Amino acid sequence: MKKLLIASSSSVHGKGYLEYILPELAEFFKGVNEILFIPYARPGGITHEAYTEVARKGFESIDIRIKGIHEYSNPMDAVNQAKGIFIGGGNTFLLVKQLYDLKLLSTIKNVVENGTPYFGTSAGSNICGLTMQNTNDMPIIYPPSFDTFGFVNFNLNCHYLDPDPTSTHMGETRETRINEYHTLNKTAVLGLREGSWLHIKKGKIILKGSLNARLFQQNKPALELPPNTDLSFLT
Amino acid sequence: MKKLLIASSSSVHGKGYLEYILPELAEFFKGVNEILFIPYARPGGITHEAYTEVARKGFESIDIRIKGIHEYSNPMDAVNQAKGIFIGGGNTFLLVKQLYDLKLLSTIKNVVENGTPYFGTSAGSNICGLTMQNTNDMPIIYPPSFDTFGFVNFNLNCHYLDPDPTSTHMGETRETRINEYHTLNKTAVLGLREGSWLHIKKGKIILKGSLNARLFQQNKPALELPPNTDLSFLT
Repeated sequence: MKKLLIASSSSVHGKGYLEYILPELAEFFKGVNEILFIPYARPGGITHEAYTEVARKGFESIDIRIKGIHEYSNPMDAVNQAKGIFIGGGNTFLLVKQLYDLKLLSTIKNVVENGTPYFGTSAGSNICGLTMQNTNDMPIIYPPSFDTFGFVNFNLNCHYLDPDPTSTHMGETRETRINEYHTLNKTAVLGLREGSWLHIKKGKIILKGSLNARLFQQNKPALELPPNTDLSFLT
Repeated sequence: MKKLLIASSSSVHGKGYLEYILPELAEFFKGVNEILFIPYARPGGITHEAYTEVARKGFESIDIRIKGIHEYSNPMDAVNQAKGIFIGGGNTFLLVKQLYDLKLLSTIKNVVENGTPYFGTSAGSNICGLTMQNTNDMPIIYPPSFDTFGFVNFNLNCHYLDPDPTSTHMGETRETRINEYHTLNKTAVLGLREGSWLHIKKGKIILKGSLNARLFQQNKPALELPPNTDLSFLT
């Protein structure tokens, strides 16, 4: 049975890395003393080593060790042996390209479907949807496909931002972009605001955190869903 | 000899469609009484007909007729016969996919290299760079490649936005995204603010409008370039 935490972001304004979600992480990874970290999304282009160090410090206070996948000679073995997996944020195009190039997409999908607990933030959460097509990231590299894990039967837009009514900028709002997506695609999209996450366990997909999420479905008005909504009706 | 106007956006705050750039368009298209409009980027998902009507109204006051490429039975012939070409904004992924699917990329490139004047806004400007990899758009469809016209020897980031120092949002700034691009790619990127455009003529690439543009080069600090800078040093 799948066990996932799919978080919009690793940080919220004014708090340290993962700080807002630490109590949930401690509970979620209870009994797991080491997690495999996958740093491929490289936020700001930082190295795998530097990014893994960030993750290590984030998990220190809940006594969970972090090992970076780049520390293993065979990344596929690392995934198969992992007691828990954390994929951090950064650039989704780069992350997906790496996962395809190293043939890790199906390997990770397989272990998570079989019960290895998975925690994702931002880019690491985008890829939990059917495709990465609702990322906000810049296409800095060309991946062989936009198809991703499909741990949920919809797509995710992380760092969801409401339109700013005072803005004079003429670029598209997030809502406009997602509506453009729905002129070509049927997959529902969940706009997950910073500080929100999904907890997937025993077949339920529960919205956690204190904020609503915004659900976009083709040819329907967008819906505001309050915390504790079970999104398994979308599957 | 190439003749292009590459505009950051079709509109600026408080003005109508193309209004801010009409005097320049009248001058640029002097002697041309009909322009081929390519509506494939479909902003907000509008139809080719509706989008062409928007362009038609935009050009009405300077007495230039607009014909939509979808009104022709053979789009390649339409490009080859065009006296001028305008590609409007919308979603760059969709625009590029359509241009590849209809085998129009090389056809348009060829006529523009041979002197057909080209006007682009937003997505229609992104594709004037070597690749579309600095678009802000959502990847709502998978194009066969990110390579684009290469009318200039760098890439463009349209609707360039400066970081907002008061923001509490944790998503990446535009500058962070472009810097991530430069951890993997060498191509220079020009951040073109709304209301700015490039005028390419007689081998010169002149920044027009009242604002600076921001130039990002790999391993160099970003540069603010004032109006009337000639960017042909990048070629």
